[in-house]
Amino acid sequence: MILVVCLNPALDVTHHVPAVDWTGVNRPTAVYSRPGGKGLNVARTLRALGADVLLMGLAGGGTGSVVETALRRAGVPTALIPVSGETRHTFTIVDGSGTAASFNEAGPEVTMGEFNPFRQAYKEALAPAEAIVLSGSLPPGLPVTTYAELIQAAAAAGVPVLLDSNGPALLRGVSAGPAIVKPNLDELAAVSGRCLSASGGVDRAAVSAAAAGLRAAGAEAVVASLGPAGLLAVTGDGSWHAWPSAVAEGNATGAGDAVAAALVHGMVMSRPWEERLRHAVALGAATVATPVAGEFSQDGYRDGLRPVAVHLEEVR
Amino acid sequence: MILVVCLNPALDVTHHVPAVDWTGVNRPTAVYSRPGGKGLNVARTLRALGADVLLMGLAGGGTGSVVETALRRAGVPTALIPVSGETRHTFTIVDGSGTAASFNEAGPEVTMGEFNPFRQAYKEALAPAEAIVLSGSLPPGLPVTTYAELIQAAAAAGVPVLLDSNGPALLRGVSAGPAIVKPNLDELAAVSGRCLSASGGVDRAAVSAAAAGLRAAGAEAVVASLGPAGLLAVTGDGSWHAWPSAVAEGNATGAGDAVAAALVHGMVMSRPWEERLRHAVALGAATVATPVAGEFSQDGYRDGLRPVAVHLEEVR
Repeated sequence: MILVVCLNPALDVTHHVPAVDWTGVNRPTAVYSRPGGKGLNVARTLRALGADVLLMGLAGGGTGSVVETALRRAGVPTALIPVSGETRHTFTIVDGSGTAASFNEAGPEVTMGEFNPFRQAYKEALAPAEAIVLSGSLPPGLPVTTYAELIQAAAAAGVPVLLDSNGPALLRGVSAGPAIVKPNLDELAAVSGRCLSASGGVDRAAVSAAAAGLRAAGAEAVVASLGPAGLLAVTGDGSWHAWPSAVAEGNATGAGDAVAAALVHGMVMSRPWEERLRHAVALGAATVATPVAGEFSQDGYRDGLRPVAVHLEEVR
Repeated sequence: MILVVCLNPALDVTHHVPAVDWTGVNRPTAVYSRPGGKGLNVARTLRALGADVLLMGLAGGGTGSVVETALRRAGVPTALIPVSGETRHTFTIVDGSGTAASFNEAGPEVTMGEFNPFRQAYKEALAPAEAIVLSGSLPPGLPVTTYAELIQAAAAAGVPVLLDSNGPALLRGVSAGPAIVKPNLDELAAVSGRCLSASGGVDRAAVSAAAAGLRAAGAEAVVASLGPAGLLAVTGDGSWHAWPSAVAEGNATGAGDAVAAALVHGMVMSRPWEERLRHAVALGAATVATPVAGEFSQDGYRDGLRPVAVHLEEVR
């Protein structure tokens, strides 16, 4: 079983408004509402890959109930610990040209008293877990050491962790020695304090150096997701660059979560790094090509595997 | 008891974002969430005036539960009939300059099978009701004759109705003979097909003519709310113009609902029209002057009563 932790889930509400009046009253022509938060996307993707998943996290209030009910309907085994605050919303407004503006709430304030039952449930879930994904932001109130603590508990139980977060929570988590961290370009630039682009493109040498820095800080492997430029992995076995045959057009929301899902799935299946990266690139591209954030076509995924280029950059 | 009907309540979510990026990801610095929908504002205002109120309506899903729980906490006696669809959100973004953009969902599709239990509950609530307020939009699925039907049932039980809606639901409702309809300038212009402004201001002669048209179509009295220009009432007793001593600065959201609450409260208290209008203008201005939509300061309301000008325009 792969344990996916989502401490700050959301109800993602999307409004389609053909011509937005940014100073007045709008009546959306279409409204979509679905459970969100990076961990939820990872769990759904792992389910679609046929993996045995348990989603654990925190949820509160009526919005928390909506999220939990929708996950159950989607067939994702879910154990959400109740908190007193209201689970957050994210709002996205998409206009007729496809331009999107998002408004992401920080989430409910969580007390340590509320977090303790989660800690207990997490420890009990470690025994049957083959791997763990810690994904997304921490809700207000939880210390930046929260992911580090969860990684230490997993290490004590011999369970490898993939960490996908940002800022101080990512940095502190790295120091606890996760098996994989998966920052995107912005997240890697922020935690490394480096500029990672050169003349409009990705500076892969700088990305490699920043990723090596996270390895030196404790991560066993670092996979940076570079958008259309693919993935750059710096691991104990070597470094690889993997990229899609063609740039996928579509909705990039959730593509990074698909990459995280493919990486942890490949780890559990003991695939070599080349194969993990090939699957991660193809699944990310198939997710971009599907209009609904975080979903993908199985055919698009399968057909996209062969054309992925994987280049060994350095052997260790 | 005043029965307030809100068939399409909402959870109003407001995000404060100092500098909005209309093409990217925003992180609101403050998030407010409260039950909304015009009827809910009317019911809260009547409670604050000390009136005995029952709020009836339809609610569904987790968002409906959030609305119901918050109303209970606010001390508003509430009887919401469950529907299978999810109660809607409205979403407002306020930037650092105070400019607001709103996104109002249409609401859940309601079937007649779901509406029948409401009908039954409404009929049972008529006996103890002194007056009824029908307020706001109809959810998708309910016919435009819905308010007309509820007004007819109230008439059969001898209970007067104040109707505050718009478009076809307002027009069909008017034909059923409500005691008062309270359109704003835009709503009156839309249903009368007249232009009601002249050289940037309100054309009061045109408003009077449009209001007289709604009386001819069935309404016993029409009170048009004209924003800073106050109220224009066309009734069986005569016509009045009532306006505040000074233009209130602030948040006009919910001011029309405060006017509706004051008008029905005055009706139940058998106040003459001059007094009803004086209270309605003062309460509307006190609501505008309070930053939170739909709330008012009791002191502001009381102090604002005396300076209201009420001018008898025509005697019948």
